[in-house]
Amino acid sequence: MPRVSTAFKEDRRTEILEAARRCVARSGFHQTSMQDICTEAGMSPGNLYRYFPSKEAIIAAIAERDRAEVGAELGAAQSADDFFATFEALARHHLVERNADDVGLCTEMVAESRRNPAIAKTMQDFDKEVRAHLVAMLQAAAQRGDIRADVDFDAVVTMLMIMADGVWWRRAVEPNFNAEEVLPLFMELTQKMLMGGGAFDKKKTGGSQS
Amino acid sequence: MPRVSTAFKEDRRTEILEAARRCVARSGFHQTSMQDICTEAGMSPGNLYRYFPSKEAIIAAIAERDRAEVGAELGAAQSADDFFATFEALARHHLVERNADDVGLCTEMVAESRRNPAIAKTMQDFDKEVRAHLVAMLQAAAQRGDIRADVDFDAVVTMLMIMADGVWWRRAVEPNFNAEEVLPLFMELTQKMLMGGGAFDKKKTGGSQS
Repeated sequence: MPRVSTAFKEDRRTEILEAARRCVARSGFHQTSMQDICTEAGMSPGNLYRYFPSKEAIIAAIAERDRAEVGAELGAAQSADDFFATFEALARHHLVERNADDVGLCTEMVAESRRNPAIAKTMQDFDKEVRAHLVAMLQAAAQRGDIRADVDFDAVVTMLMIMADGVWWRRAVEPNFNAEEVLPLFMELTQKMLMGGGAFDKKKTGGSQS
Repeated sequence: MPRVSTAFKEDRRTEILEAARRCVARSGFHQTSMQDICTEAGMSPGNLYRYFPSKEAIIAAIAERDRAEVGAELGAAQSADDFFATFEALARHHLVERNADDVGLCTEMVAESRRNPAIAKTMQDFDKEVRAHLVAMLQAAAQRGDIRADVDFDAVVTMLMIMADGVWWRRAVEPNFNAEEVLPLFMELTQKMLMGGGAFDKKKTGGSQS
């Protein structure tokens, strides 16, 4: 019995997170009430508050779940054989395949993070973890000899994250934005960065973590 | 007398736009009321509504003014001598020097554009104009022989705009984000793209506008 109950609670939790994601993506963070999330999830407020005390807590739980997924995805990618093929599959998944609700929720969080310290911390923690995974992935690829080792991987990851954010911003603003067409450009720039040169060369003293 | 009156109206209009920019950047688009903007601008609601019928109209007017400024800036840059020096000055102005209120207002508009067709159109028109200016600037530089002509300038501008958006997104999310440190990376990638290669080579048939 306790096992069933735990599984049931976990399912309800997932339903709440999915309902909140849809509501916030559709209506915006501030225009979404806990009542809206109850209605979307088909549960009573009393029941909802047993799972989460606030919208911020729900958003943090969504981010936590995403972080676990992205962490597993990037962790697995680190030990894959062919760096560029693996990286392109990751890029396609994140830039092209992630759905419009994910993009919408994220734009809401970016806007909200400017005045809501809890949301800002959630975003920053997430980014820090993604950054660490990407740098580790590049270091592993360099150790295998897939890519050059004398490149400033911190600088590369900074620009990769900026480009990925920019693609999501474009997707939010332009309903017809074609992320599929941008993927070859993104990959071409990734290759160019990983060839080093100028600002992407590893600093002689300090600079890179490797 | 009519001249004085026109100048006065123009000043009041500018004050309203500045007040609205501060309010929306600080509190968010939805949490800003016309009354908040009145208070910030130090005028009565009746007076405010003589200038603008709605928040959307104020936002559109801010965007219109920005568009005129950016248009003049990019238009002047087109005929400047040294492409890379001119472009770096533009990049510095836009990525580093534009203030946090501009970034904040823009993140609000991105989030809002997903459900507000008037805001979406304002953003899309703005982007379309910036894109045309940047492509024209690259074409002029190629004609002067500053950069190669056999590069897909549309593709380059797509990635320039994505990177610029990404830097603003980072500035919104990370209070300590150092855009100054990113500038050399942005310029390095611009140079790499303008060397062509792979996805950045001009398409043999169609593709580029030049």
